[in-house]
Amino acid sequence: MDQPDQSASEAPPPTLGIGMVGYAFMGAAHSQGWRTAGRVFDLPLRPALAAVCGRDATAVRAAADKHGWAAAETDWRDLIARDDVQLVDICTPGDSHAEIAIAALEAGKHVLCEKPLANSVAEAEAMVEAAERARANGQLAMVGFNYRRVPAIAYGRRMVAAGRLGALRHVRVTYLQDWLVDPAFPLTWRLKREYAGSGALGDLGAHAVDLAQYLAGEPLAGVSALTETFVRERPLLAGVSSGLSGAGSAESGPVTVDDAALFTGRLASGALASFEATRMASGRKNALRVELNGELGSLAFDLERLNELSFHDHTEPAVTSGFRRILVTEPEHPYLEAWWPPGHALGYEHTFVHQARDLLEAIATGTDPEPSFADGLQVQRVLAAVEESAQKNAVYTPVQA
Amino acid sequence: MDQPDQSASEAPPPTLGIGMVGYAFMGAAHSQGWRTAGRVFDLPLRPALAAVCGRDATAVRAAADKHGWAAAETDWRDLIARDDVQLVDICTPGDSHAEIAIAALEAGKHVLCEKPLANSVAEAEAMVEAAERARANGQLAMVGFNYRRVPAIAYGRRMVAAGRLGALRHVRVTYLQDWLVDPAFPLTWRLKREYAGSGALGDLGAHAVDLAQYLAGEPLAGVSALTETFVRERPLLAGVSSGLSGAGSAESGPVTVDDAALFTGRLASGALASFEATRMASGRKNALRVELNGELGSLAFDLERLNELSFHDHTEPAVTSGFRRILVTEPEHPYLEAWWPPGHALGYEHTFVHQARDLLEAIATGTDPEPSFADGLQVQRVLAAVEESAQKNAVYTPVQA
Amino acid sequence: MDQPDQSASEAPPPTLGIGMVGYAFMGAAHSQGWRTAGRVFDLPLRPALAAVCGRDATAVRAAADKHGWAAAETDWRDLIARDDVQLVDICTPGDSHAEIAIAALEAGKHVLCEKPLANSVAEAEAMVEAAERARANGQLAMVGFNYRRVPAIAYGRRMVAAGRLGALRHVRVTYLQDWLVDPAFPLTWRLKREYAGSGALGDLGAHAVDLAQYLAGEPLAGVSALTETFVRERPLLAGVSSGLSGAGSAESGPVTVDDAALFTGRLASGALASFEATRMASGRKNALRVELNGELGSLAFDLERLNELSFHDHTEPAVTSGFRRILVTEPEHPYLEAWWPPGHALGYEHTFVHQARDLLEAIATGTDPEPSFADGLQVQRVLAAVEESAQKNAVYTPVQA
Amino acid sequence: MDQPDQSASEAPPPTLGIGMVGYAFMGAAHSQGWRTAGRVFDLPLRPALAAVCGRDATAVRAAADKHGWAAAETDWRDLIARDDVQLVDICTPGDSHAEIAIAALEAGKHVLCEKPLANSVAEAEAMVEAAERARANGQLAMVGFNYRRVPAIAYGRRMVAAGRLGALRHVRVTYLQDWLVDPAFPLTWRLKREYAGSGALGDLGAHAVDLAQYLAGEPLAGVSALTETFVRERPLLAGVSSGLSGAGSAESGPVTVDDAALFTGRLASGALASFEATRMASGRKNALRVELNGELGSLAFDLERLNELSFHDHTEPAVTSGFRRILVTEPEHPYLEAWWPPGHALGYEHTFVHQARDLLEAIATGTDPEPSFADGLQVQRVLAAVEESAQKNAVYTPVQA
Repeated sequence: MDQPDQSASEAPPPTLGIGMVGYAFMGAAHSQGWRTAGRVFDLPLRPALAAVCGRDATAVRAAADKHGWAAAETDWRDLIARDDVQLVDICTPGDSHAEIAIAALEAGKHVLCEKPLANSVAEAEAMVEAAERARANGQLAMVGFNYRRVPAIAYGRRMVAAGRLGALRHVRVTYLQDWLVDPAFPLTWRLKREYAGSGALGDLGAHAVDLAQYLAGEPLAGVSALTETFVRERPLLAGVSSGLSGAGSAESGPVTVDDAALFTGRLASGALASFEATRMASGRKNALRVELNGELGSLAFDLERLNELSFHDHTEPAVTSGFRRILVTEPEHPYLEAWWPPGHALGYEHTFVHQARDLLEAIATGTDPEPSFADGLQVQRVLAAVEESAQKNAVYTPVQA
Repeated sequence: MDQPDQSASEAPPPTLGIGMVGYAFMGAAHSQGWRTAGRVFDLPLRPALAAVCGRDATAVRAAADKHGWAAAETDWRDLIARDDVQLVDICTPGDSHAEIAIAALEAGKHVLCEKPLANSVAEAEAMVEAAERARANGQLAMVGFNYRRVPAIAYGRRMVAAGRLGALRHVRVTYLQDWLVDPAFPLTWRLKREYAGSGALGDLGAHAVDLAQYLAGEPLAGVSALTETFVRERPLLAGVSSGLSGAGSAESGPVTVDDAALFTGRLASGALASFEATRMASGRKNALRVELNGELGSLAFDLERLNELSFHDHTEPAVTSGFRRILVTEPEHPYLEAWWPPGHALGYEHTFVHQARDLLEAIATGTDPEPSFADGLQVQRVLAAVEESAQKNAVYTPVQA
Repeated sequence: MDQPDQSASEAPPPTLGIGMVGYAFMGAAHSQGWRTAGRVFDLPLRPALAAVCGRDATAVRAAADKHGWAAAETDWRDLIARDDVQLVDICTPGDSHAEIAIAALEAGKHVLCEKPLANSVAEAEAMVEAAERARANGQLAMVGFNYRRVPAIAYGRRMVAAGRLGALRHVRVTYLQDWLVDPAFPLTWRLKREYAGSGALGDLGAHAVDLAQYLAGEPLAGVSALTETFVRERPLLAGVSSGLSGAGSAESGPVTVDDAALFTGRLASGALASFEATRMASGRKNALRVELNGELGSLAFDLERLNELSFHDHTEPAVTSGFRRILVTEPEHPYLEAWWPPGHALGYEHTFVHQARDLLEAIATGTDPEPSFADGLQVQRVLAAVEESAQKNAVYTPVQA
Repeated sequence: MDQPDQSASEAPPPTLGIGMVGYAFMGAAHSQGWRTAGRVFDLPLRPALAAVCGRDATAVRAAADKHGWAAAETDWRDLIARDDVQLVDICTPGDSHAEIAIAALEAGKHVLCEKPLANSVAEAEAMVEAAERARANGQLAMVGFNYRRVPAIAYGRRMVAAGRLGALRHVRVTYLQDWLVDPAFPLTWRLKREYAGSGALGDLGAHAVDLAQYLAGEPLAGVSALTETFVRERPLLAGVSSGLSGAGSAESGPVTVDDAALFTGRLASGALASFEATRMASGRKNALRVELNGELGSLAFDLERLNELSFHDHTEPAVTSGFRRILVTEPEHPYLEAWWPPGHALGYEHTFVHQARDLLEAIATGTDPEPSFADGLQVQRVLAAVEESAQKNAVYTPVQA
C-alpha cells in the first residue's frame, strides 16, 4: 500500500460503465462495492457509476446523489439502453430478474444479478440460455452469491480443494435469523410468493445451498424437506418498506411463503448434508453457519464472526489436535493483501467489493466469472426439489441434473 | 456443607442393596454414581453396592474390588436372586435389556436400565408391561437417560416449563462424535446390529431424541430420515474390546449398523425439529448440542461445555440482548446446593450421581421416577419411525402414539 | 436507506476540502473514511479529497490516483497553504505531528491528527496551546483515537455513563500483537525512538489508555510500570518499508523502543486498572481486550471480534445471569442506523468513516470534537508517567493533572 | 476399564490411614479425593479414611458419617496421635497450618497441607525445616496446589517443558471471582487478617503464582504490586459460616485483608508476568485464566472451562495457524486413561482425586511429591514480596531466593 506504484507513469486503466437497477439494501451494498473496489485493488478496469434506476423519480435521484451515481433513470429499459452502461447490475426483487437480465444481455451488456437467480426454474433456464448466447458475443453474466467472497469462505474452499479434509462425510448449514419472530411484523414483499418466490428458502436457503456446494466442490444429488409457515396472517403494510422493516396497519393478510425450511440431502459423493433456513430463531441475527467433516479434517464458519475460520486437522495426534480459530486476515488469505495488517477485521460489505473486483477482472481477461448463471440455475433446481419434497411428504427427491 | 447436620443424632437412613449387571464403561460410571450419591446428598436411602455381575469370573471379581462392590456374580439370574439386592442396575448392551429387566421386575426388584431401553419396540413394550405390573407391587423402573441430570439441562427444562421461551418454533440437536472416522477402527459389538440394535441412531440419536422431547416438554409427531454407513467393512476384532476401542485383525467383516442418521420432524405443537447423530464428524468428541428457539427466548447447550447454559431473552430490548452464558454452578441450580461454590465445574459422571440420588428419592417416597420405561418406549418408537422413514425414501413417518 | 430522501430537492451540502499528509497504512484507512462517510451518512458537509502529501513525488501521485485525491503535494507546507484545503489530516509518524499540526492551525485550518498526539508531553502541550488559540477562530482539532468509534465501544461508553456498571472496581486492558516475535523482523521506523517516540507503549498502550479512560469516564491518577525490549538488535532495513513489514539486510542495529509495557494504576475514583501492551504475544494479532467490572455489572470487548460487546448485569438473579454477547448491529446502536440490517458485520475501517462523520458534524455545528488535543495530551502524560515509573524501578508515579 | 485386571489374583495393596483436620469446603473436596482415587486408578496404596477432626463434636461426627470417615476427633493432637493415621491432611484456615503440620511431621506422619502453606514466610520456613527433618525418616510433605492436577494444566506443563513454546516472553494470570461484590456480604474469617493472612492475594493470588511458575518452569525474580480493599466495613457474622457464605448482623467491623491485588513481575529468564487476583469482578465466578506467550507458541487456559487447553503453534504457516481448542480428554492426556472416553468432561473435584493418587504413588515409591513444602514456601515469599511492594508504593521488590 505504501510502495510506489510502478505503473504510475502508465496510462490509467479503461473504465467500464455500470448501471444498477434497484437502490434499497442490496443497491446500497453494491454501490459501496463499485465505489471502493478500485480504491483498494489494482484493477484492469475502473468502474464508472454511470446510472441507477428506480420507479420513484425523486427517490432514485436522491439515491443517486447519496451513493455516487452520475445519473438516475426511472425505467430499467432506459438504463439498459444507455451508451455509458456496459454492465447491468440487478438488485431488484426476484420476480423481475429474468426480464431485466435477458433484456440486458440481448442489449449487449454484461450482467450481475442478485441471488436467487430467479423465482422459478423456468425463468432461470431462460436466463442461462440468454447468457450462453451472449457469451458468444464476449458478454459475461454472474449471479451474486456474495458470501463466496468472504475471505474465510474463499480460503475454506481452497483448503477443501487442496484435500485438507479428505473424503467428505458431512456438510451442515444453518442460516438462522429472527426478524419474523414478532407476529406484528408486517406483510412486506418478502412475505408474498408473487414477489419473493419463496420465504426463508429462497432468501436464506439459497445462500446455504450455494455455500455448501461451493465449499464441498460438488452438487446435491437429492433432498428431503419440511417447510413451515408459523405465522400465517400478518398486518398489511402501512407505508413504504424495504422488505426487512416497516409499520403495520390494522388490517391483515395471508403470508404466502415459508417461515422456515429444513432439509437433508446427499451430495454426489455420498456425503450427507443438512440444511435449516429460518427467520424465526430468536436471538440469531445472521447465523449462517457451515461445517464440513471429512476423513482428514473439518472446517466450520459462522457469518456472525466472518473474519474467522475454524479448522480441525485430523492428521495431527489427538493429544494436541482441536479446532483452531484462524483469523483470516493474513496477506496470504484471499483478497487480504489489498486490505489491512493482520488482525484488522473486514465486514459484510467487503464481499461486494470483492465481487466487483472479481467480475471486473473476469471481464478484462475474458474469463468466465463464478458463480455463473448456470450455477444460479443449479441452486434454483435444488430449491425446486426442496419445495417438491416438502409437498410430497418429505420424500427424497432427486435434484434435476 | 459445613453446617452441623441437624439429623446427626437421628438413626441413619436404611440401606438399599444394589446389584449391577455389566462393568465396562457404563458400569464404572454407575458405580461412581452409587458410591458417591450418599456422600454428597442427604439421602433417605443409603445405597449398598451389594454385587456386580459379569460372565468372566476373574474379571468381574477384579471389577468388584476396583469399583467397591461387595460381591461378584457370573450369572445375572443369580444376581437377581440375591436377597441383598433390591435394585437391579442394567449396564449391558441393548440386546439383553429386555430379558434381564423383565426377570428382575418379576423377581420383585426395582430396575434401572441403561438407554436405549431395548433394541426393538416390541421388547420395549414388553418391558413397559412388566414395569406396570411391578408398579402395583411398589417397584419402580427407570431408564438411564443420564443427560437429563446435567444441571444445565435440568435447569433449561425448568426455564422452558416456566414459559421463558414462549411458543416453540425450532428444536435442533446434533450429537457428533468421531471415533469411527478411521476406517481401521475394528468391528466391535457396537457396530453389529444383533448386539447394538442400531449404530449412531440408537447410541447417540436416542439421547438426542430424549433431550429434545424432555426440554420441549412434548413428543415428536413424525419424522423424515436419511441414514448412512460410510465404511461398510471393518477389521474383525483381535482380542477383548469395550465397544469403544480395541485392536483389529487382518480379516474384515460387514458393519451392519448406521454410521450416521439425519432426521427432521415435527413436535406435537407444530414446532420443527432437526437431528443429526454421527460418529464420523472429525474433531467432534462428544458434541451433543441442543438449541431451542421460542417466541420469547432461546436456549442452547453443548455437552462439551456442560457447566454452561446459553440463554437469549427475546423480551429484552434488542439493543442489550444477546445469548448469555449462564455458568450453571449456583446453589439455586438443580443439584448444585450439595456440590461446590459457584464457578467450580462438575463433570460427566456427576450425571450418574444425580441419577442415583433421584432414583433413591423416588423409591423412598414411592413416586414414579423419570424417565420411566414408558418414556424409553416412546423414544424407541421415534427411533423405529426414523428407521422406517429411512427405508421408505425419507417419507414423513408418524411416530406411534 | 430505501426511504425517499426528503431533502432531495434542497441544495446539496457545502463541501469541506481535506488535505492529508502521509499515505501509508493510516493514509489508506483515512482515505476510505473520507470517501465513504458521505455515501453512508447524511452529512451537513461533504468532504472533498483535495490533496495528499508525501515526499516521493511519483509515489504520492500514484497514491492520489489510487485513493481518490484530486492533487498531490510533496511538501506539507504547500499542502497547508492550499486554498482548497480547510482541514489537514495528519497521518505521519509521531515525530512530525507537532510541527505540522501547529503550522496547520496557525494557517487557519481544522486539524485531525493521528494518535499518539505527539512523541513527548512538551510537543503535545504546544499542540494543545495552538489548538486553543485556533479555537477562538472557530477552528477545531481532534486526535485520532479511532477505536472510540467502534460501535461496541461507543455503546459500552453509553452503558457506563448510564450507570449500568455502578461503582467501578476494575478496568483491565491488554493490547496484544505478535509481529515482532520473529527476531529477523527488521529495524523499521517503528522500532526507533527518534521516529516513534516509544514502542508498544505509544503504539498500542496509547489506544489502551485512551479506551480505558474513555469507557470508565475518568482519568488515571497514577501508574506503576515495567517495560522490556526482548530483542535488542535487529537487521537493518533493506529497501522501503511501511513500518509494519519489510525485508532485512545482513547488518543489524539497536532497537531503541520497548517491545512490551506492563502497567497497573488507579483511576481517579479509586478503581484499579491494569494494562499490557506488547508486540510479542505469539498468536495474538490485534487483541485489544477491555474489561470493566463494576458493582452493578461488567463489560468486555475484544477488537478481534469488534461487532460484539459482552455484558453482565449483576442486578439479575445469579441463577439466570451471565455474560451476554450483544451483537452490536442493531439500528439503535451508535452509527448503525446508516449501515446494514442486524447481524451484518462492520470492520476495522468503519471506525475511520465514523471519525470523519463525527468531525464533519462537529465542524458544521461548531461543537468541540472528542477526543480533543487536550485528551491526546492527557494520554501523553499517562505514557510519560509510565516511562518515568519504568525508569524508577516501577514506583507508583502520579499522572500530571 | 473393561480389561481383566491381571493382578486380580495377587494380594490387595496395603492401606494407608488418612486423618483429616477440617471438614468444610476443602474437607469435603479432599474426602471425595481420598474415597475415589482407588476406585479409578490402580494404586499401590489404598487410602483408609481413618478419622476426621473438628472442634464441634456433633458436627464432626455428622461430617464423618457424611463423607465416609471411620472415626471423628475434636482435637487435632488426638488425630495425629492415632495409630491408624499415617498421613495427616490439613484443611483448616491458614493460621493453624504451621502448628498442625509441624506436630504431625514430628509425630512421624506424612502431611498434605492445603494452600497457602502458611500465613507468613516465617511459619512456612519452619514447616520446610520440619519437612526436611522428617524426610530423613522417610516421611513426605506436600502442599495442596490442586490446580496443577487439572489435566489441561498438567499437559500444558508438559508442552512447555518439551519446548513447544520456545523462549517465554509473557505470562499473564488473572483469578477473578465476584462473591464480595455485594457490600452486605458479612465479615467471615476469610476477611480477617488474623485467620486468613491476606485476602484475594493469599486465596487466589497464591494459586495464580503457583500456576504461573509451574507452567513456566521458573520462579519469579521480583514483583511490583498494588492492593486495595474497596469495601472496608462489612456486617458482622450472625451465626455459623464457611467463609464463603453466611448471614450478616446489624453491626459491622473492619475488613483487614485486600479485596484485590494486582502485580507485575519478571521471571528468572526475563519474561514479563502480570497477575490480578480479585473477589470483586462481577460476573466472574472462578475465572483463573492463564496465558503464556513464547517465541514458538502460546498456551491459554480458563478454569471455568477446565477440560480445554488453547494452543497456538507459531511454527505453522500464519495462513492456517490460530489458537486451537484441545479437549483434554484423550487417554494420552495426564490422568485421563483411568477416566472416561474422549469428550467426557471432568470437573473441579477430580483435581483432589489426582492429588490423592499422586501423593499415594509418591509415598509408595519413596519419591518426593510436588509441590513440596519448599515450593509452598517459595510462593509465600512471592506473596510477601507483593505485600512489601504494595506497602512501598509499588516499587519493584525482589523475591527472596
